[in-house]
Amino acid sequence: MIVGVTSPKGFFASAIRAGIKQKGLDLALISSPSLCNAAGVVTQNSVKAAPVLLSKIHLKDGYSQAIVVNSGCANACTGAEGMEHAKRMCEKTGDLLGISGKDVLVASTGVIGKRLPIEKIEKVLPDLAENLDTGGGEKASLAILTTDTRPKVMKTAFKIGGKIITLGGMAKGAGMISPEMATLLCFVTTDCNIISPLLREALKETVEDSFNQLVIDGDMSTNDSLFILANGRAENSRISRRGSDYFKFKSGLGELLEGLSYQIASDAEGATRLIEATIINAGTLKQARDLSRDIVTSLLVKSMVFGYDPNFGRILAAIGRRGNIDERKVKLWIQAVKVFHLGIKTRFDEKALSGKMKSKKVSFLVDIGAGRAQAKALGCDLTPGYVRINANYN
Amino acid sequence: MIVGVTSPKGFFASAIRAGIKQKGLDLALISSPSLCNAAGVVTQNSVKAAPVLLSKIHLKDGYSQAIVVNSGCANACTGAEGMEHAKRMCEKTGDLLGISGKDVLVASTGVIGKRLPIEKIEKVLPDLAENLDTGGGEKASLAILTTDTRPKVMKTAFKIGGKIITLGGMAKGAGMISPEMATLLCFVTTDCNIISPLLREALKETVEDSFNQLVIDGDMSTNDSLFILANGRAENSRISRRGSDYFKFKSGLGELLEGLSYQIASDAEGATRLIEATIINAGTLKQARDLSRDIVTSLLVKSMVFGYDPNFGRILAAIGRRGNIDERKVKLWIQAVKVFHLGIKTRFDEKALSGKMKSKKVSFLVDIGAGRAQAKALGCDLTPGYVRINANYN
Repeated sequence: MIVGVTSPKGFFASAIRAGIKQKGLDLALISSPSLCNAAGVVTQNSVKAAPVLLSKIHLKDGYSQAIVVNSGCANACTGAEGMEHAKRMCEKTGDLLGISGKDVLVASTGVIGKRLPIEKIEKVLPDLAENLDTGGGEKASLAILTTDTRPKVMKTAFKIGGKIITLGGMAKGAGMISPEMATLLCFVTTDCNIISPLLREALKETVEDSFNQLVIDGDMSTNDSLFILANGRAENSRISRRGSDYFKFKSGLGELLEGLSYQIASDAEGATRLIEATIINAGTLKQARDLSRDIVTSLLVKSMVFGYDPNFGRILAAIGRRGNIDERKVKLWIQAVKVFHLGIKTRFDEKALSGKMKSKKVSFLVDIGAGRAQAKALGCDLTPGYVRINANYN
Repeated sequence: MIVGVTSPKGFFASAIRAGIKQKGLDLALISSPSLCNAAGVVTQNSVKAAPVLLSKIHLKDGYSQAIVVNSGCANACTGAEGMEHAKRMCEKTGDLLGISGKDVLVASTGVIGKRLPIEKIEKVLPDLAENLDTGGGEKASLAILTTDTRPKVMKTAFKIGGKIITLGGMAKGAGMISPEMATLLCFVTTDCNIISPLLREALKETVEDSFNQLVIDGDMSTNDSLFILANGRAENSRISRRGSDYFKFKSGLGELLEGLSYQIASDAEGATRLIEATIINAGTLKQARDLSRDIVTSLLVKSMVFGYDPNFGRILAAIGRRGNIDERKVKLWIQAVKVFHLGIKTRFDEKALSGKMKSKKVSFLVDIGAGRAQAKALGCDLTPGYVRINANYN
């Protein structure tokens, strides 16, 4: 069993029902017995939820010791009262753990604009703190879900200087969101001994190739948060410079975040298949990232994947949007079948290729013949189910 | 009866079935007995169809006399042969009308990457030219349709220096596109006497506030084309400077293009209602245009309109994406009901507002309190019907 955030040494988690969602667990806590080096990335949306704003402040010193999360209410667009509620979540959690409220990070997910039922949260927080357990990662991964159909947890381990370093993570789905829910949340723990500035740098860089290349519906939440806590219990000699140890750690973190990204894309709401778009031979890394995202963002591409239609012209139209593609240099493969070569359609068996597109994962590979950079983006198909889920007024 | 492109004096049109589409009229011709001042705007996509590339060349001198258009095949991503076919369409049409092929504009709409059946087109071109008629605008407006459920035609008239100036136009739907179709096409005729540079300028400026603010699914076609021909038959004194006559003309053109934009948004495939998003008190015109487009582009906003759900947080999230909004200065109205005031949700009757959203047109008004600029964008809801139409593999 993968327990995710409690996989690394010295991490505890718990979950409880506070009664914010209509049913199920809706409040989770992660903590370590000692102060951790910490880093985070949050939504770029200028409309940021109160917990996002508060956690940013709490992360400034590079230390943290606990994360408290609720699902069922985003505590976004809730004014000064919302900020007060986020603070109360941190302070009360800190009191119960005997640490400063400033060493607690907070995250919320759910409907925007509604008041957070803080009384319900405060009522169950003592029980939540009481039940912290080294096997609590699984329960915690359930409490942060909204319309996800399954939890997203992952762990990875590798050696640095003879010591086993473990990374654990849990996430909740992005995008394919019910009317009451929003947000990508991801929490990562590690027993690695690594200074905060490098933790932050590793996080920022690995996020670029994982979550930032994951497009479900192009909407950006007010609450997206990814936090990482490193408690140093693996007892490796402290990583304090960009040497081989740092790159090993970064590579492990990248693997963990990519794995969680795949899990999120596979479980996107209403989706029936995952889309993986790879751009090769781009002029720059930015171009490769942008164009691969453009493909998985296109509604027409998403729709054709739902209908297993090898209508490759839509992929060309999607990468042409930014205005710097020469179609005479482009080669395009769908499910490893070449469909377009240097400006002209190839001869391929459309029916056979359509059959290949019925797989759980549909891959597009585009060589744009402009340089040597490459990047990948993940997405999912667009289905009538997505629309129904997101239109449904309660 | 509105005949559209044959409404102004001295314009003829005709339509015929060439057999490119599975059924119905699929080839149209518009022409004037004398050379017209002409202008056009085409897709910004770097993957441009052959007819788009050729028409751009033909428009360079500012003159044109005819437009030939087919539906059922986009003639895009078709290499050198595609360009040869586009040229043959212009030359053959020119021969039949006794004019240079360089004074003919060409447009195509349909599936990308398939060879244009030029033989079928050349076979019926003589009949098409033979049947040119001052009442032909209606038939022509039918021949350019693809998955549109109805033709889009409009005319407007006003006086300049005592002379009646008429503008006529026809368009086909954008975005909500079947697997085999794509593209926004719009053709405008006028009997106004106006020099080409000003015609071009008026077109560019009015397009900014009409078609460029119309978002159906965010996909950009390889074939989008908007051409205008002005034959001067209204006998107004030539408009050759930016005076009051020019502004009258521009205002009329803006009205025509806006009217056609509404018709396109109302008939978007699978859509049940039109969305009109207005941003007021923006810092700049660009910001107002961008943010209003962001609202109508958001899948979550589009889905909530389908489900008549006043889930205003999604509108705030959509305008926050670009990162320069202060929610404490924002006011938001849905169907003229204020739902958000300076950072906090207002008290409003959600059920009653949901009822109001069942109308054919749903309006959002957002005051971002950053300046004095304003702009509007048009879109439509996202429905299971859209996905089904665009996924359907033939």
